[in-house]
Amino acid sequence: MSQPTTKERILEASLELMNERGFANVSVADIAAHLGISPGNLTYHYPTKRDLILALRDHVAGRYLELAVDWRPDRVLEQGAAWLRAVARETWHSRCLFRDAAQYLTIAPEFRERSRDDVLRLGRRQVVHYLQALMDGGHMQRVPASEVEALGTSAWIVLRYWIDYLVESHDVREIEPAHLDELVRHFEAVIGPHLTPAARRSLAAES
Amino acid sequence: MSQPTTKERILEASLELMNERGFANVSVADIAAHLGISPGNLTYHYPTKRDLILALRDHVAGRYLELAVDWRPDRVLEQGAAWLRAVARETWHSRCLFRDAAQYLTIAPEFRERSRDDVLRLGRRQVVHYLQALMDGGHMQRVPASEVEALGTSAWIVLRYWIDYLVESHDVREIEPAHLDELVRHFEAVIGPHLTPAARRSLAAES
Repeated sequence: MSQPTTKERILEASLELMNERGFANVSVADIAAHLGISPGNLTYHYPTKRDLILALRDHVAGRYLELAVDWRPDRVLEQGAAWLRAVARETWHSRCLFRDAAQYLTIAPEFRERSRDDVLRLGRRQVVHYLQALMDGGHMQRVPASEVEALGTSAWIVLRYWIDYLVESHDVREIEPAHLDELVRHFEAVIGPHLTPAARRSLAAES
Repeated sequence: MSQPTTKERILEASLELMNERGFANVSVADIAAHLGISPGNLTYHYPTKRDLILALRDHVAGRYLELAVDWRPDRVLEQGAAWLRAVARETWHSRCLFRDAAQYLTIAPEFRERSRDDVLRLGRRQVVHYLQALMDGGHMQRVPASEVEALGTSAWIVLRYWIDYLVESHDVREIEPAHLDELVRHFEAVIGPHLTPAARRSLAAES
């Protein structure tokens, strides 16, 4: 991996501080101090907090896009378990962007539209494609397209809000591998009854 | 119904304004002005915003407790559909309490512990009891207790975050009856494969 650029370091430091304290409680000066650079160096790259949040959004959307899987019916079971974990880890890594939306939408209203298109629609669509690959691979009984859509939405909600659920109901402060295993298990609880017994055993072994 | 007391009117007005603008952007003076009462009258009942948020928490927890159902195997199908809608309506009605937690937990940290006990654990437990009543009523195939727990958590996540999903992914600004029908449909997508065909038809008719 190449050295991160100053811009990338600024974005990652912003996520780290905002995840911890919330968007409204982190100033541009805090981020500069955290990195040991001058505020002027930071504002050279991102003049305002609005510029920063829009850049963060592109940065995180790019990270989610990299997770997108080209589902293959012959490898879908391993692909699925790995993908669920990767999405949950990324949701944790960028949790301030989802959680603090009400704090920055007033200064960057276009965030909502762009983020909806990229991250959220992509995520739900990926779940639907995952289900289709499971059917194509003979791992899941065929269900009508409308049912795939409804099941996909429900399964996507479990995936999207798994981290929120852990934080809100179990006061989780750090994501451990066991939390990702649990996600696979709960996602499986949603799609499991449609899977073949062999696929169910295989997914259970992956969790 | 008896006339609401001044305290109740204050709590409902607080929810209304905070749902709209966020906890941090609503002052005690705003709430008094909205109700047409003096700030002194309001602070007589709730001296600080911390007192107000703790009272709001008890108020909302009481509303959720009232929704708790005494599940009856012979009536569980109608009870279930009505309960799902009622919980989603209440989640919308008190959405600032969930959404803005990061804004008030610093001034009222005990909120987290108390709210977890009452509202969140109760909600998940009610889903598990609902599933057990479905099994007792012969509407759902028997699954092992550990599977009921896992299925209950997944179904509860769909119920708890349905409103968040509509707001975040579909920019919904007002909850309509059709949104509640969709919730029943998506909850049903999770538990449906375990239901008898007759129970599935009946739940579909309720959505």
